[in-house]
Amino acid sequence: MADRSGAFTEAQAIARLNEIFASSDPRIEVGIGDDAAVVTGAKRQVMTTDMAVEGVHFRKDWSTGFEIGRKVTAANAADILAMGAQPDYLLVAVGLTGAEEMAWIEDLAHGIKFEADLAGMHVIGGDISRSEKVVISMSAVGHCERAITRSGAQVGDGIFISSLTGWSAAGLAILQSSVVATGDAQNSAVREFKSPTIDYGFDSSLATAMCDVSDSIIEQGKQIADSSGVELSLNENLFAHSQEFADLQAIANELDVSVWQWIFAGGEDHVLLATGKELPGLRIGEVLKGSGLSGIPSGLETSAWRHFK
Amino acid sequence: MADRSGAFTEAQAIARLNEIFASSDPRIEVGIGDDAAVVTGAKRQVMTTDMAVEGVHFRKDWSTGFEIGRKVTAANAADILAMGAQPDYLLVAVGLTGAEEMAWIEDLAHGIKFEADLAGMHVIGGDISRSEKVVISMSAVGHCERAITRSGAQVGDGIFISSLTGWSAAGLAILQSSVVATGDAQNSAVREFKSPTIDYGFDSSLATAMCDVSDSIIEQGKQIADSSGVELSLNENLFAHSQEFADLQAIANELDVSVWQWIFAGGEDHVLLATGKELPGLRIGEVLKGSGLSGIPSGLETSAWRHFK
Repeated sequence: MADRSGAFTEAQAIARLNEIFASSDPRIEVGIGDDAAVVTGAKRQVMTTDMAVEGVHFRKDWSTGFEIGRKVTAANAADILAMGAQPDYLLVAVGLTGAEEMAWIEDLAHGIKFEADLAGMHVIGGDISRSEKVVISMSAVGHCERAITRSGAQVGDGIFISSLTGWSAAGLAILQSSVVATGDAQNSAVREFKSPTIDYGFDSSLATAMCDVSDSIIEQGKQIADSSGVELSLNENLFAHSQEFADLQAIANELDVSVWQWIFAGGEDHVLLATGKELPGLRIGEVLKGSGLSGIPSGLETSAWRHFK
Repeated sequence: MADRSGAFTEAQAIARLNEIFASSDPRIEVGIGDDAAVVTGAKRQVMTTDMAVEGVHFRKDWSTGFEIGRKVTAANAADILAMGAQPDYLLVAVGLTGAEEMAWIEDLAHGIKFEADLAGMHVIGGDISRSEKVVISMSAVGHCERAITRSGAQVGDGIFISSLTGWSAAGLAILQSSVVATGDAQNSAVREFKSPTIDYGFDSSLATAMCDVSDSIIEQGKQIADSSGVELSLNENLFAHSQEFADLQAIANELDVSVWQWIFAGGEDHVLLATGKELPGLRIGEVLKGSGLSGIPSGLETSAWRHFK
C-alpha cells in the first residue's frame, strides 16, 4: 500500500492507519473513515484529553515511535482509570512535520494500538495535520457505574498507591546523566520513563477518592486533600518495605540524588493514588481530620506550578 | 483572578478557563477539574477529533483568538452535524508557546465557548501544554438516532449543499492579495475564512448520505460517490441563481480568478453536502448510476492529495 522507501500521500498513510486500528468490536457501528465515528454509548461516561509535544513530553532521539505512542495512550487511559472507569474509545490527532518515514508513523500507530489493547480501548477516529514539531493529542472515553472523584476521601481512610512512584523520574535522570543503564532496575526505570506501566488491574471498587499521579504524589495528594477537605498524612516508612523501593534507592544512590525526590515529586508514573478502607497496592498513609498533605520530607524540589510567562 | 498585565500561573489560567466554560447542564456530573469529566451518555454516539496548528490552519496576525477559537470549534461541530447528529460535549487540548497574554487565551476561550453555544455543545475538559507554535486539538461527542454516513446515496436522489461554498477560499484570497476588503460581500468572505458560519439549522433528517465540506466539494463529492457506489452529477448552472453567487462572483472578478475554483475546490467552508429526495439548501445536481463526480469545470486546481514528504 504505502511506499515505505519514499514519498507517500496522506491518503496512503490514512489507509495504513485504518488497517492498524481496525476493530471488530460490535459497539463500533462506523469506525475510522467517515466524518465521525458512530459507537454505542453508555449511561455514565468519562471523558478526558491529553496532549504531548515533541521536546516537551517526549524526544524522538530517546524514544521510539512505539514507545511514544504507548506513553501518550497510557496517559489518557490512566485518566479514565482514575475515575474508576473502564476505557472504551480513543480519538487520536497527530501533527507531523513531513520529515517522518512511513515506518516511524506505523511504529507510533502500533504503540498506540498496543497500549489501547492493554486498556481495552478502541481507536475509532483521528486526524493528521502538519506541524513543526510532532504533536500527539488524544481523547479517551470510558464508562463507569460510579465515578470516583478526588473529593470523597474520608477521615479514617487509608491512602494507597497502585505501585511505587518514582520510576519514570529515575529513568529520566538516567537518560540525562552520563550513567549508561545496565542493571535490570536501571533498564526498568528507563523503560518506565519511555512507556509507563499502567496498573490496569488495580481494583478501585472500594476507593473513596482517586487520582492519576501524572504530576507527583505531592501535587495529586494535595488535590485529593483540598477537594475532600481532609488531611492526607503520608508516612515514608511505609514506602520502604518493598524490593521495588530497594531497587529504586540503589539507582538514586548511584546518581547521588534523594530517592524521595523521585517518589514524592517525580512525574509521569501514572500510578493510581487512592483512599479507602481496604485497597490493593501499597498503603502509604492515612486520612486525618485537617487539611493539606503532611509527611513529605523537606528539601524536595517541586516544579508543579509552571509559569507560562 | 489572573493578573492580565503580567505573569500568570497554569493554575490561574485553568481557574479562569473553568469560569468561562462553566456549565449547569444536568448531564454534566463532573466537569473540568478532575482527572476526567463524568457525563450522561447516549445509546448511539458520534465522536470526532480535529487539530489546528498555527501557521497551517490559522495565523495570529490575521485572526483574533476569538475567531480562531470559533473556527476550530466549528470544524469539530460540523463533523458531528455531518453524521446527522446533535453535538453534546467538547474536549479541548491547547499547546501554548508561553508568549501569549492571558487576555489572548481568554479571547480564544470565549471564541470556543461562543461557537460551542451555537452548536449546543458543552466544554467538559481540557489540557494545556507547552509547544513552539499554538496547537489546538479538539474532540467532539454527539448523539443521534440514525447516523448519516457517506455511503447511503441512492440513484435518483438530488444533491444539496446547506449553503454556497467558496466563501472561505474567497476570504483567504482577499487576505493573500493586495485588495483591502471594503464591500459587504468582501468583508463577509474574510469573516467566513476566519470563522465559518456553520449551518446548524440544516434539517438533514431525510438525507441518505452526508459530508462536511472541509476540503472541497470535489473531494467530499468523490467520497460520497465512492462510498455509495454511485455517480454524483453536478450542474454548475444550479449554483448560479442566488444573490450569494452573484456576490461571490463579483469578488472573483475583482481578484481575476474563477469563482468555480472557490466553489468546487475551496476548503474550510464546512458546508454540509447531502443527498436525498427533498432537502433544504441549494440543489446542485443529481445522483446517477455510475461512479465518481461529473460536471466539474475543467482547469481547476486541487490540492487535496497533500504529500507528506
